[in-house]
Amino acid sequence: TDPKSVRLYNLYNEPAFFWTSHMAVGALLSLVLFEDPAVPSIRLDYWITMCVELFCVCLIFSRLAHQGIFSSEKNFWRSKRRLPTLVILLLTLLDMALYVILSELGVTSVRFSRPLRPLLLLCMDRAKQLRGVFKNILLTLPDIITVLTLFLLSVAFFALMALKIFQNRQDLVYYSDGQPYMHNYLDNFFHLYVLVTTANFPDVMMPAFDYNPWFTLFFIIYLIICLYLFMSICLATIYNNFKEHLKEYVEDSVREKQNNLQLAFDILKVETEAGEEELLPRSRWMSLMRTVHPKRLDLEHSLLWDVLAGSNQTGYISKKEFFHVVNLLDMRVLDDKGREPEFQRWFPRCFRSRISRLVRKAVANRFFRYFIDLAVVANAVCIALDQDDAEWFFMVLFILEILLKFYVFGLKKFFRSAMNIFDFILIVAALVINVLELAWKSISNQSGALDFLLVLRLLRLVRLVYAIERFRIVLKTISSIGRSLLTYGAVLFVFFYIFAIIGMEAFAGRITPEPFLTNRSQTRPITCGNPRLNGTQFAMNRYCNNNFNDILHSFVVLFELMVVNQWHVLAEGFVAVTHQAARIYFIIYHLLVVILVLNIFSAFILELFMLEYTVSKEPAERKVSAVVRRI
Amino acid sequence: TDPKSVRLYNLYNEPAFFWTSHMAVGALLSLVLFEDPAVPSIRLDYWITMCVELFCVCLIFSRLAHQGIFSSEKNFWRSKRRLPTLVILLLTLLDMALYVILSELGVTSVRFSRPLRPLLLLCMDRAKQLRGVFKNILLTLPDIITVLTLFLLSVAFFALMALKIFQNRQDLVYYSDGQPYMHNYLDNFFHLYVLVTTANFPDVMMPAFDYNPWFTLFFIIYLIICLYLFMSICLATIYNNFKEHLKEYVEDSVREKQNNLQLAFDILKVETEAGEEELLPRSRWMSLMRTVHPKRLDLEHSLLWDVLAGSNQTGYISKKEFFHVVNLLDMRVLDDKGREPEFQRWFPRCFRSRISRLVRKAVANRFFRYFIDLAVVANAVCIALDQDDAEWFFMVLFILEILLKFYVFGLKKFFRSAMNIFDFILIVAALVINVLELAWKSISNQSGALDFLLVLRLLRLVRLVYAIERFRIVLKTISSIGRSLLTYGAVLFVFFYIFAIIGMEAFAGRITPEPFLTNRSQTRPITCGNPRLNGTQFAMNRYCNNNFNDILHSFVVLFELMVVNQWHVLAEGFVAVTHQAARIYFIIYHLLVVILVLNIFSAFILELFMLEYTVSKEPAERKVSAVVRRI
Repeated sequence: TDPKSVRLYNLYNEPAFFWTSHMAVGALLSLVLFEDPAVPSIRLDYWITMCVELFCVCLIFSRLAHQGIFSSEKNFWRSKRRLPTLVILLLTLLDMALYVILSELGVTSVRFSRPLRPLLLLCMDRAKQLRGVFKNILLTLPDIITVLTLFLLSVAFFALMALKIFQNRQDLVYYSDGQPYMHNYLDNFFHLYVLVTTANFPDVMMPAFDYNPWFTLFFIIYLIICLYLFMSICLATIYNNFKEHLKEYVEDSVREKQNNLQLAFDILKVETEAGEEELLPRSRWMSLMRTVHPKRLDLEHSLLWDVLAGSNQTGYISKKEFFHVVNLLDMRVLDDKGREPEFQRWFPRCFRSRISRLVRKAVANRFFRYFIDLAVVANAVCIALDQDDAEWFFMVLFILEILLKFYVFGLKKFFRSAMNIFDFILIVAALVINVLELAWKSISNQSGALDFLLVLRLLRLVRLVYAIERFRIVLKTISSIGRSLLTYGAVLFVFFYIFAIIGMEAFAGRITPEPFLTNRSQTRPITCGNPRLNGTQFAMNRYCNNNFNDILHSFVVLFELMVVNQWHVLAEGFVAVTHQAARIYFIIYHLLVVILVLNIFSAFILELFMLEYTVSKEPAERKVSAVVRRI
Repeated sequence: TDPKSVRLYNLYNEPAFFWTSHMAVGALLSLVLFEDPAVPSIRLDYWITMCVELFCVCLIFSRLAHQGIFSSEKNFWRSKRRLPTLVILLLTLLDMALYVILSELGVTSVRFSRPLRPLLLLCMDRAKQLRGVFKNILLTLPDIITVLTLFLLSVAFFALMALKIFQNRQDLVYYSDGQPYMHNYLDNFFHLYVLVTTANFPDVMMPAFDYNPWFTLFFIIYLIICLYLFMSICLATIYNNFKEHLKEYVEDSVREKQNNLQLAFDILKVETEAGEEELLPRSRWMSLMRTVHPKRLDLEHSLLWDVLAGSNQTGYISKKEFFHVVNLLDMRVLDDKGREPEFQRWFPRCFRSRISRLVRKAVANRFFRYFIDLAVVANAVCIALDQDDAEWFFMVLFILEILLKFYVFGLKKFFRSAMNIFDFILIVAALVINVLELAWKSISNQSGALDFLLVLRLLRLVRLVYAIERFRIVLKTISSIGRSLLTYGAVLFVFFYIFAIIGMEAFAGRITPEPFLTNRSQTRPITCGNPRLNGTQFAMNRYCNNNFNDILHSFVVLFELMVVNQWHVLAEGFVAVTHQAARIYFIIYHLLVVILVLNIFSAFILELFMLEYTVSKEPAERKVSAVVRRI
């Protein structure tokens, strides 16, 4: 810990450097929009994207190198994310070099490093929560694999059974293509796997049902065992694992915090004359705090000291007292809760006048709120009935409401409530949109372009829900888990990105959208630009826009696959334009994203709600709840 | 408690009487097979079913009356299920009388009491667990209704939004019927409700997607909020409620048991000379046990006494000691675990001979098990490859295996393992089927009729799963919850029955199946016997067999609705042949069965698995686990 290292470390934590490297990762990830297969309107030549990519890789690498200079070798490799980052960067460089050489030689090759890009997200400094979720997924795998293997074995078993039951009945044919029903083992397996996701029920059963009603029993028994039983057991296993690992995670993080505090105390401590106790003197505390929080007042530091020391007036604090510091550091010492409204300070006489007092009383009254709520309903009714003229009246009313609230409660107090901020944003947005619409109409005389934005007015209805106590509790819980939901969003993004890039390599360009038909009487068969799709369910359902031709379309397709319904139709479409093996891609996606990640998400919501409900009973669990929310 | 009442009470608990009344309920429920709309081949005239119904009602009523005679009035009405039973019976009689009068006058009327029949199941003596689940459902309702209302409000909100976004785009039409897209508020609401069940995704989105890709955002945001968020919250709320009510239920049942024991002790007790303590003498115990378990030996009774009294040798037991009796009464006092195999007793010399010892050692060896497992795999492969000749060889092999096991372990020990019983049943069934098949072939020379049953051989593969330790744990957990699963099956049966009868009254006969087509080239349009279905998705998917024409078909349809996929196609089919209001039937079914009952089932499985995993840690929870399993 020589001074040079300290200087480098401070530089490393400088926001500019920090954000530059994070932006580089972001830029690297967004390159996929411009690389082939690109979003059509913003395609760039490959040498441009290559240059940007090289620049980003260099930035990230330089950040790593920077860290390498001031860390000891041991410390540098101790963090498990340094080595993967380095490997990914090197692989990217290798991949780029190979691609350039091969394309100069006229050979088209695959950019194999692209699916690795989102893993850089996991290696970023601030992605601790994201890493936590991925670690949880990895730890859950062994247990869930037992259940999934058993599940896949039973699917295989039922597929064999279906083969034996149906293969000799030549008069029993499958509807869509007229082939014999359930006559091929691998097809049976796929059909029954899809059946567990319920996506092809009852269609897959109907031919057998028409043939002999008792055959339905086969499908009903299969669904009871494989869908209702095994899928519930999957969720139970994942939930149980999640709870276990959460406990370990909390214990680990508490232990790590203790260790770090111990290290900090060991550096700061002085020994008392007796040599027995190790204590921290007040002077050191003050100098420490001045470096940590240079912007705070000395008064605040000594206030914190008083809180830590408690009744102990020796001018020293012990280790135990020092350990409380973590709970205090984030607290705002000087609160501005009790402050009076700004208008009272600015125009005290006016504010205290009789008329002002009347207004204040009226606004604070609950009937004022009821009146505004009523106006919101009336507004919604007007919007529903397309009474656009009333909009300006309501607009003025709501602006007046906000101004009155400004006056009565003061700006600071007003903006402390999330609901008020929401109201304010909506009304400003509505004002801007209305003015824009007016301007638009006077220019082009053609309404409709901004229709989409006008619908934002309807969001005002949300405040009604907020007015009812029971609903407010549910909404509060939802908003309190908002941040963790973002983490799960990031997890899904990583999975989506990897699968999207693989999907684009495999399927890009094989399915092209049909031109939009305004006249439905044109019922010529649709083939999505690929004759192999002729007559498939994919083409008949007009799914041509569900393709992997660019990253945005890929994300939509992957979302559709995540929702599960009709995923087999999508899968069969891509199988038709490539090969049977493409089914594996879709099955793996289903296993990973739907069965694993979504169930972990369910487990997370379950656990969170249970904690939210029990939090009033056990204060010890409140900590855990706070931790969960941070994961 | 005069002697006459006691005699009547004993008569009441007589198995013959008990089963007669239960059979009457069963007969009443199964009448629906024969009443109009009946299963075609077993239809009975209405006066026959009426007579049977009257007879059953009288039987159930007489049982109730029997109970009324020996119970005091207060006791009789204290049980909450007596009054509903009486009301249902009276309503049934009234309904029957009305129906007969009206049909004599030539007016067709509705048998309104039929949906009430399954409620009699709930009122039966042995249906305590079933009542527990229904009570739990009722108690969960208030909390879940808040979440569901919020959910329905957001669907209504998004429906309004969709209307505003899409209604002015005249060039945007819906695929299937060419009508403007999302142009009707009530239709929007239904489409978006179906979207939460994912059943019409991505089809409902595709027209908007083709029109402008950014419209997908509307659907994605909607699904994230209403599907992933609200449905998870539903499960969490239900799980939380389930846990709470389970705790209350356990506490209540413990309290009730204590009260009953207290009452019993108060009747049995004598006061000691000092008059302070209340004790139960041994003589009274013995006479009590002789009445309770007349078939057991006196030895067993005194053994139980010794266990209860413990080290206390006064010849009396205190109240506290008496309370332990519940844990002991069900125990088998004399166990036959250590008994030797039957063959050892019958032919001791032969059993101990050298060759016999060798055989015993071989059979007990694990390689014997491996060999048999290998044979099972080989057998499955042969079945898969249609090598029917090998079947007799394997048959003999497996019969030999069972005979050897009989010899080595003895009959009693053999039949104590569930796996062995399973093996035994399979092999006997296979033997019977093979012989039947042989006979069949020699008669008609036409194979195939028994194909379905031959597949039972494949069930042998299940024993392989049992051979792997990790799988065995999962299977054991499943089998340990088997009984509770039956309770949930009964709950579903009650719901299915009620909805089936209502469905039959509303939809019977409106959709008739098409004749089975062996030649698929006949592609004339299908209308399921109702011209209104022409061109609907229902007819195009050949769903004609999904109708409410008899109870069996109704159950299949309700199962399909429970699996959710394509439920909107089914619903729209029935809407097409009746009225828009029919949608309400399907939405209520979805809310009740899919959202409420299936989530409670999930909560139950979750709780059970959590208990199963933690049971080794906390012995206190084992009791709860046992109780859960009984619910």
